[in-house]
Amino acid sequence: MATRIEQRSPAAQPVDAAPARIAGVWCPVLTPVDQDLRPEALRFVAHARWLLDEGCHGLVVFGTTGEANSFSVEERIVFLEAVLDAGLPRDRMLVGTGCCALSDTVRLTSHALSLGITGVLALPPFYYKNLSDEALFHSFDEVIQRVANTSFALYLYHFPSLSGVPITPGLLERLGAAYPDILAGVKDSSGDWNNTRMLIERFPGLAIFPGAETLLLPALQAGGAGCISASCNVNARQIRKLYDDFETGGDGLEPAQDELTAVRKVLQLRPMIPVMKHLIADKRGDPAWRGVVPPFRSLPDAEASALEMELSALGWRIGQT
Amino acid sequence: MATRIEQRSPAAQPVDAAPARIAGVWCPVLTPVDQDLRPEALRFVAHARWLLDEGCHGLVVFGTTGEANSFSVEERIVFLEAVLDAGLPRDRMLVGTGCCALSDTVRLTSHALSLGITGVLALPPFYYKNLSDEALFHSFDEVIQRVANTSFALYLYHFPSLSGVPITPGLLERLGAAYPDILAGVKDSSGDWNNTRMLIERFPGLAIFPGAETLLLPALQAGGAGCISASCNVNARQIRKLYDDFETGGDGLEPAQDELTAVRKVLQLRPMIPVMKHLIADKRGDPAWRGVVPPFRSLPDAEASALEMELSALGWRIGQT
Repeated sequence: MATRIEQRSPAAQPVDAAPARIAGVWCPVLTPVDQDLRPEALRFVAHARWLLDEGCHGLVVFGTTGEANSFSVEERIVFLEAVLDAGLPRDRMLVGTGCCALSDTVRLTSHALSLGITGVLALPPFYYKNLSDEALFHSFDEVIQRVANTSFALYLYHFPSLSGVPITPGLLERLGAAYPDILAGVKDSSGDWNNTRMLIERFPGLAIFPGAETLLLPALQAGGAGCISASCNVNARQIRKLYDDFETGGDGLEPAQDELTAVRKVLQLRPMIPVMKHLIADKRGDPAWRGVVPPFRSLPDAEASALEMELSALGWRIGQT
Repeated sequence: MATRIEQRSPAAQPVDAAPARIAGVWCPVLTPVDQDLRPEALRFVAHARWLLDEGCHGLVVFGTTGEANSFSVEERIVFLEAVLDAGLPRDRMLVGTGCCALSDTVRLTSHALSLGITGVLALPPFYYKNLSDEALFHSFDEVIQRVANTSFALYLYHFPSLSGVPITPGLLERLGAAYPDILAGVKDSSGDWNNTRMLIERFPGLAIFPGAETLLLPALQAGGAGCISASCNVNARQIRKLYDDFETGGDGLEPAQDELTAVRKVLQLRPMIPVMKHLIADKRGDPAWRGVVPPFRSLPDAEASALEMELSALGWRIGQT
């Protein structure tokens, strides 16, 4: 490519115009599917509106919970256009765009930005493993250069147990130095508090989100931005309440965290995507919500019964309060 | 889907018409790229013809070595049509078609079969991890049902260190029982001889290939089918010679295996794809061959010099003999 987007030179002054940092309780939204296992926009939009009503600050379209990588690029493009046409707020949305193939990542990122989306959450290319910081920097650099748009916020997605390709501090330092106006934050789905704390302490300019609400309170206390958690699909109101209570200096934070954690532990006893789709199908009286794309399977009836018993033992149900 | 492809019922008689089993020395062919990092057919075809001349029994298009997952589905489709139009032999070719997204795997598999390809090598869906045999069976079953073609041979690709999703004996048993006319073999890139031997012993009806020539002799001695190895891109003639010597009861098998292994160990000291593209660029006097798709980087000059010294210390060079 002839013209490169300008990287920040080491001698340049810091700018005030850092990318918009998001904060709060963000939901990686489940993706309902139709009978042909294609993503289905109408059910998604209704669910997403409910999530915003329940208190989510924002939505992630096509994260891990949204079965992003189980859909083709074409399916993702058609779907995103449909949900935006339906009026979901662009400024309360991140879109997952990181694929194995460079050209797919570039295409999805460019497409999202062309629709007015200003923040993306990107997995690293995740087929090849044991990549150096240099290799990963080069990969993200190539994506940014090809997207050729400096007006967006890039959130990196650290999910080593699924992607097998960690987002390291060395990568963040290098990418943040080269693109301080673009690199905006990290979703840390390691589940490892030591890693989340290290990121918060070492990168105060980035919005650091643990990938589950089990770490919401410690993250907020350490200076983290909130959480981006699958459980928001079914427990947003309670998660938001803890966030607000922390912000306003309310009481009972630890017991509230313990309650959130207890519910989460039940939700994740079984594959969470089928579990949460089952709960939403039940709540809405809409069995089509139970559909999942292989390799997932809908929650078997026996498992569903056990789940419901465990949740009611906690006195919890979806959309309570 | 209304009509299902017939699975073999447990009571059915075994059939004679098992899928065509391939055997021998198969090369997962490197994919050259153009300046825009798209797969480039002309250089590929010339290299592939040379590999057949050097003794490869067949070619794998879009394996791990071919950077398959670094290209979009569209790029893969256009490329496969171009290399077949150029006259590469369909009956000496497997095509890699396994993606994270079910719809992508179905599309690539259907496309390859529509062009007269009769064998595919499929990764399992590899984003989500810790999948049960049931989940993986369901996933491959769904692909076969959607492809709706019973005239092809399915080879499964076991590469746990990259895919993170192993091909287990339980999966092979279940898939082989349901689709004995389709399931044809396994490429075992675990690098674990105990696993390869177990597969050979336990699945005598399947063609089992270790994923590197370092295990060629023991695999042949145990009843394996040959090997499907990246190194064939630069060392096919010697690998084929060991295969032929074994088949004809020749002498000096162990020393020949040791020589192959010594070369392989040098080739894999650094990322093998950039290493082999460098060697081919040198041999052909064609620097464009050095191009790789991120996250890979072309071999740095200092590394290239070290590589060349190490290889000449073994008295080896590409395309010798």
